[in-house]
Amino acid sequence: ELKSDADAKKKKPAYKLNGRIHLDNWNFLDSDPGVNELETGDPNDDPEDRWDFRRIRLTWTGTVPQNMLYRIQLDFNNPSSAEMKDVYLGFNNLPHNQTLLIGNQKRPIGLDHLNSSRHNVFAERPLAVEAFNEDARRLGVCMYGYNDAESVHWRYGAFLLENISTDGRYRGDYDEAGLYGRLSGSPWYDEISGGRGYWHWGLSGSVNTTDGDGTIDNDQNQNEARFRTRPLARSDSRWWNTNRILGSEGYQELGLESMLNIGALQITGEYINTWVQRDPAGGFNGSNLHFQGGYLFASYFLTGEYIPLNRTSGTIDRVKPFENFFVVDRCRGGTGKGWGALCVALRGDYLDLSDSDIRGGRGYGITAGLNWYWTAYSKIQCNYVVGEIENGGQGLDDVPLAAGIGGDFSILGFRYMIDF
Amino acid sequence: ELKSDADAKKKKPAYKLNGRIHLDNWNFLDSDPGVNELETGDPNDDPEDRWDFRRIRLTWTGTVPQNMLYRIQLDFNNPSSAEMKDVYLGFNNLPHNQTLLIGNQKRPIGLDHLNSSRHNVFAERPLAVEAFNEDARRLGVCMYGYNDAESVHWRYGAFLLENISTDGRYRGDYDEAGLYGRLSGSPWYDEISGGRGYWHWGLSGSVNTTDGDGTIDNDQNQNEARFRTRPLARSDSRWWNTNRILGSEGYQELGLESMLNIGALQITGEYINTWVQRDPAGGFNGSNLHFQGGYLFASYFLTGEYIPLNRTSGTIDRVKPFENFFVVDRCRGGTGKGWGALCVALRGDYLDLSDSDIRGGRGYGITAGLNWYWTAYSKIQCNYVVGEIENGGQGLDDVPLAAGIGGDFSILGFRYMIDF
Amino acid sequence: ELKSDADAKKKKPAYKLNGRIHLDNWNFLDSDPGVNELETGDPNDDPEDRWDFRRIRLTWTGTVPQNMLYRIQLDFNNPSSAEMKDVYLGFNNLPHNQTLLIGNQKRPIGLDHLNSSRHNVFAERPLAVEAFNEDARRLGVCMYGYNDAESVHWRYGAFLLENISTDGRYRGDYDEAGLYGRLSGSPWYDEISGGRGYWHWGLSGSVNTTDGDGTIDNDQNQNEARFRTRPLARSDSRWWNTNRILGSEGYQELGLESMLNIGALQITGEYINTWVQRDPAGGFNGSNLHFQGGYLFASYFLTGEYIPLNRTSGTIDRVKPFENFFVVDRCRGGTGKGWGALCVALRGDYLDLSDSDIRGGRGYGITAGLNWYWTAYSKIQCNYVVGEIENGGQGLDDVPLAAGIGGDFSILGFRYMIDF
Repeated sequence: ELKSDADAKKKKPAYKLNGRIHLDNWNFLDSDPGVNELETGDPNDDPEDRWDFRRIRLTWTGTVPQNMLYRIQLDFNNPSSAEMKDVYLGFNNLPHNQTLLIGNQKRPIGLDHLNSSRHNVFAERPLAVEAFNEDARRLGVCMYGYNDAESVHWRYGAFLLENISTDGRYRGDYDEAGLYGRLSGSPWYDEISGGRGYWHWGLSGSVNTTDGDGTIDNDQNQNEARFRTRPLARSDSRWWNTNRILGSEGYQELGLESMLNIGALQITGEYINTWVQRDPAGGFNGSNLHFQGGYLFASYFLTGEYIPLNRTSGTIDRVKPFENFFVVDRCRGGTGKGWGALCVALRGDYLDLSDSDIRGGRGYGITAGLNWYWTAYSKIQCNYVVGEIENGGQGLDDVPLAAGIGGDFSILGFRYMIDF
Repeated sequence: ELKSDADAKKKKPAYKLNGRIHLDNWNFLDSDPGVNELETGDPNDDPEDRWDFRRIRLTWTGTVPQNMLYRIQLDFNNPSSAEMKDVYLGFNNLPHNQTLLIGNQKRPIGLDHLNSSRHNVFAERPLAVEAFNEDARRLGVCMYGYNDAESVHWRYGAFLLENISTDGRYRGDYDEAGLYGRLSGSPWYDEISGGRGYWHWGLSGSVNTTDGDGTIDNDQNQNEARFRTRPLARSDSRWWNTNRILGSEGYQELGLESMLNIGALQITGEYINTWVQRDPAGGFNGSNLHFQGGYLFASYFLTGEYIPLNRTSGTIDRVKPFENFFVVDRCRGGTGKGWGALCVALRGDYLDLSDSDIRGGRGYGITAGLNWYWTAYSKIQCNYVVGEIENGGQGLDDVPLAAGIGGDFSILGFRYMIDF
Repeated sequence: ELKSDADAKKKKPAYKLNGRIHLDNWNFLDSDPGVNELETGDPNDDPEDRWDFRRIRLTWTGTVPQNMLYRIQLDFNNPSSAEMKDVYLGFNNLPHNQTLLIGNQKRPIGLDHLNSSRHNVFAERPLAVEAFNEDARRLGVCMYGYNDAESVHWRYGAFLLENISTDGRYRGDYDEAGLYGRLSGSPWYDEISGGRGYWHWGLSGSVNTTDGDGTIDNDQNQNEARFRTRPLARSDSRWWNTNRILGSEGYQELGLESMLNIGALQITGEYINTWVQRDPAGGFNGSNLHFQGGYLFASYFLTGEYIPLNRTSGTIDRVKPFENFFVVDRCRGGTGKGWGALCVALRGDYLDLSDSDIRGGRGYGITAGLNWYWTAYSKIQCNYVVGEIENGGQGLDDVPLAAGIGGDFSILGFRYMIDF
C-alpha cells in the first residue's frame, strides 16, 4: 500500500479528449402573429428558418494523482464567441463513492438536463426543465455519490445563480446563490437482461436568494429570478419568458421525476414547481408567484434496442444499435449493408409562467420524434412540434403588460449528430 | 468477415490532432491614391504595414466505427474571434471509393482553393480563385470519389451560399444555395519516379440561386451574389469588390484548370467565368453581367525537389526536401548542417469584376515568389507583388458610381510557417 | 550518424497537451473613495467582489524533425473572447545549447513574469514586474541558451511593443519595438541535496522606441509608452497607470533580481528602473521621466518542501509535496489520508509611476500568502493584501491632472488551481 501510494505520487496527470458535432435544421412552418411578435418583436415578421451548428464541443477530461480530476469543456458552435460548459477540478474516490467538484457544472434540478445532449430522446429539452434550470450549469461546489449497491444516487451543492458560460466571471457584491440537491434511485433494475428493465425515480429541490434591488443599487448584480425557455426548438428568442422579476427576494423549486423502462419501451415524466417571493417594485404588485410545468413522453425502439440507465449518476446512457448503418464494398465482392436502429417517440409538454401581473406565458407543446441511430455515436433526430402559448410577452418589456400575447405554432427540425 | 464486423462495432471512436502556425509580415511599399482609397476610404491614408498571425489552426479528425468520420477545424489567428473551417461528419468507404460529407467544407470550384494553405506555392491565393469562391467553405453536403486506377477524381454537392465561418449559423427563409461539381484527372502520371512527372486537368462548375430582394424584404437573407478579393496579399479591405449585386437572381460559374509537372518544374493555370442574372434595383440597370479571371504560374526547385500530386483528391501534396535545414552540435564534436530546399516561382494574375454599371475592378498582378523549405513541415515564403487595378470602388458604395477608381501598387510579404 | 539523420527526417511531428484551470475569488474588503474612483470612476462605487476563471489554458507543444519546435497556447478564461499566450515556432539544439523562437513569447524583463503562473508563490505578480513588462508576451524573435555547466543562462531578442494577445495582429507603419536581454546565473547550487540550496541572480534590460505622434498622424500606431498594473489582485481597472504618455519617443529599462533558497526558506527580490524620453505634447511639459519599483518576499514551507530552480531557464520549477492531500477508502478497510504541503509567505511591494506632470501613482502593498499544496499539480492560494496608493489617476484622463487621487485598500483572495 505504501509502495502503491509512492507509485501514484510519481505518476503524471493524464487526459482524454471527447467531442461532438450537432448540426441543426429548423423550419418554422406556421406561426400566429402573436408568436411572430414573441420571436421578432413584429407580428408580421415570422421566425426565420435556419441551419445552425448547435454544438461543436470539445472536452478534455483527466486525472491528477493521487485522487484528483478536472474537466475543460468548450463549445465552438458560434466560433467567434465560444462558451464554457463543464470546467471544474475536484476529488474522486472519496469515502462512500463520492466525488467533489469545484467549478462550472450542472445544477441538480431535473432529469432531462442532467442527461447528456448526446443521449436525450428529443432534440431540445422539455419546456419546464429548461425554464426552471436555464442552461443548467453554474459556478458552484457539488458532491456526487451513490451507495455500494448502486441503487441510490445523490448530489447536492451550492451554486451562484449568474450564468458565466460566455464570460467566465461573476461580478457583484451580492452573492445571488442557491442550495441544490437531488436524490434518485432505481429500486427495480433487471441485472439479468443487462438493464433492459428498470424503474428510476428522483426528487430534487433548491432554495435560492436573489438581489431584490436588481439594477437599482450600485452593485453589478442583476436579479437572477428569471424563468424562460425556447419553444422546444432553436428559435432566436425565448417565447416563454418572465423577464427579470423586479423585487424578487428569493425562490424555491421542487422537482419530481420518474422513468420506467421495459425493453424497447420507455415512459418518462417530470414535474417542477417554483415559488417566488417578491416586494412591490417598478409598478409590479409584489404578490408572491407560483410557476409550474412538466412533461410526459413514451419512446419505443422499432428495432428492439433500449435506453440504458447509468445507475451511479441517475441519468440515461448511450444507446447501442444491434446493427450499425453502413454501406461498404466487401473485399471479396458485393456490398455490405446495415440499417441502424429506429426509435419513435411522443412527448407532451406543459408550462405555466404566468401568475398575478407577470405574463411569462402559459401553454403546451406536442413533440413527435423519430431517431435513426446510424451507430452508437451518430444519429439523425427528426422532431415535429405543434404548440400553443397564451398570456405571454413579459420578456419584451420591463413593465406590467395590459394584456398578454400568444398563438399557435408548428415547427419541423432535423439534427445530424456525431460524437467521439 | 462477420467477425471483423463485430470487432468494428465494438471499436471506439478515434482522433488525431493536426495544426499549423502561419505568421505573416506584409509591407505595402507603394500605392497610388486610388488604391489608398480602396483600402482605407481615404486617398491620403496608405495601407498600414503589418504583422499578422495568418493562421493558428487546430484540426481534430477522427473515425467512428463502422465507416463514419468527422472533422472539427478551428482557427485562432484572431483569438478573440475564432473561425470554423472544416466542420463535418460523414461516411467513408462507400462503394466506388466514395466519401459523403455533411457540414462546413470547401466548395469544389478552383484548384488553388482545394489545395491546402500548407502546400500552396504562393502565400495568398490567385485573384480569380478567391473572387469566385470566396473563403471556399460553406455548409453543404458533398460526395467525393475516384476510380480504382486513381486517374479520375470527382466531387459534387449542394451548398448554402452564406459564409458561416464566424457565427456557425445560416438564417433566412430564402435558401440561397448552389449545386457544385468538379471533375479532374491525371492521364499522365509517372509511377516509376514516384510521381515526379504528371499532367492534371480539371473542370468545375456551379449553378446558384440568390435572393434578389436582398435586404428589402422581411427575411434575413442578404444577397450572396458578391465577388471580391484582396490584392494577393493580406490587406484590410478587398480591393476588387462588386459589393452585393442588387437585384441578382442567380449566377453560374465555369472553371478550367491544368497542372503540368516535370520534375522540379511546375506550370499551372486556371480560368474561371461567372455569369450573373439580375433585375433592375436600387438604381442599377439590371443587365446581365459577365466576370472572369485566371492565372498562370511556373515554379522551379533549385534544389531539385518536386511538388507531389494527390491523385485521389486532385490536389497537390506535401513537398519533402532532400535535406532539412538544421544546425546542431554533433555528439562527437563539430557542427552538423543542412540547407533545406529552395523554390522560385512567378505568377501572373488577371481579374475583371467590372461589367455594365458594376465597377468591381479590372486589373492584374505579378507575383515573384521564393520559398525556402526548412523541413517538410516548415518553410519561409517571400512574395513580391506588383499590380494595377482600374475601374474599381463598388465595394465602397451601394449605388452606381459615376466613375471607377484604381491605381498601381507594390507589396512585399513574408510568411513563417510550421505545421504538424 | 548519417543513419540517425535519415531516421529523423522520416519521423513525424509530435505534440503533447498541457493545461491549467485557475479559479479566483476576490473580495475587496475596504477601499477609500480615491481608490473607488481609480476602480470605477466614481468615489462612491466600490470595487465589486468577484469569482473569475483566471485561467482556462490549453497548450499544444511539439517538435518537427529535425530540430524544430512549436507551441500554441490559448486561454479561454473568457470563452467568448479567447487570448493567445505563447504561439511560436523555432529551432532547438542549436550550438551552445541554444533555442531560437519566432512568435508571441515573454519579453525577458523581470524574474517573476518569466516564472510560470503555475509555480509562482503569490497569486498575482509584483507591482513593478507587471507595470514595467505588462502581460510580458509580445511578438518577437528571441534566442535562449545556457552554458554547459548550467550555471549561466541568457536570453535576448527583439520585440514589437503592441500587445496582440486578443487579436493576433500588429498594425502600423511605425515599428514600435525594443531590444531585450537578460543574463542570469546560479553560482551556488547544492547538487547533493538535489537543489535545496541555491543563489540565483539576474540582470535584464531593454531599449525601446515608441511613436511620439501617437494617434495624431495617419498610421494606426498608438504610443506604447504606457506603464500600469492592478493592485496585486484582479480588479477591473489598473490603479497604477501612467496612460499612454503623449510625446514619448522611447524608453529604457534596467532590472535586477536575486533569489536565495535555503531548504524550505526562500528570500527573493527584484528592482526595476524605467527612463522615458518625451517631447511636449497635449499640454504635458515634455520633461524626461523616471519610474521605479521593486519587491522583496520571504516564503517558508511549514512541511519542509522547497522551491526548485530550473537552472537552464533561470526560473523556478514545480514544487513536489512530500505527501499529497487525499482521503480515500482503502480496499482492505479504513480510510487513507494525506495532508499535502503548507507554505507561508510575506511580500512587500513598492511602485512609483508618478514623475513630473504624470500622475501614474506611487504606493506600496503588503501581501500575506498561504499556499496549501494538494498535489504537485494542484493547490489553493490565499492572499491578503493591504496597500496604499497616492498621486494616481492619470489612467482616467488624457490631460495633465490638477491633483492626484489615491487612498488605502485591503483585499482578500483565493485561488483554486490545477494543471496537467
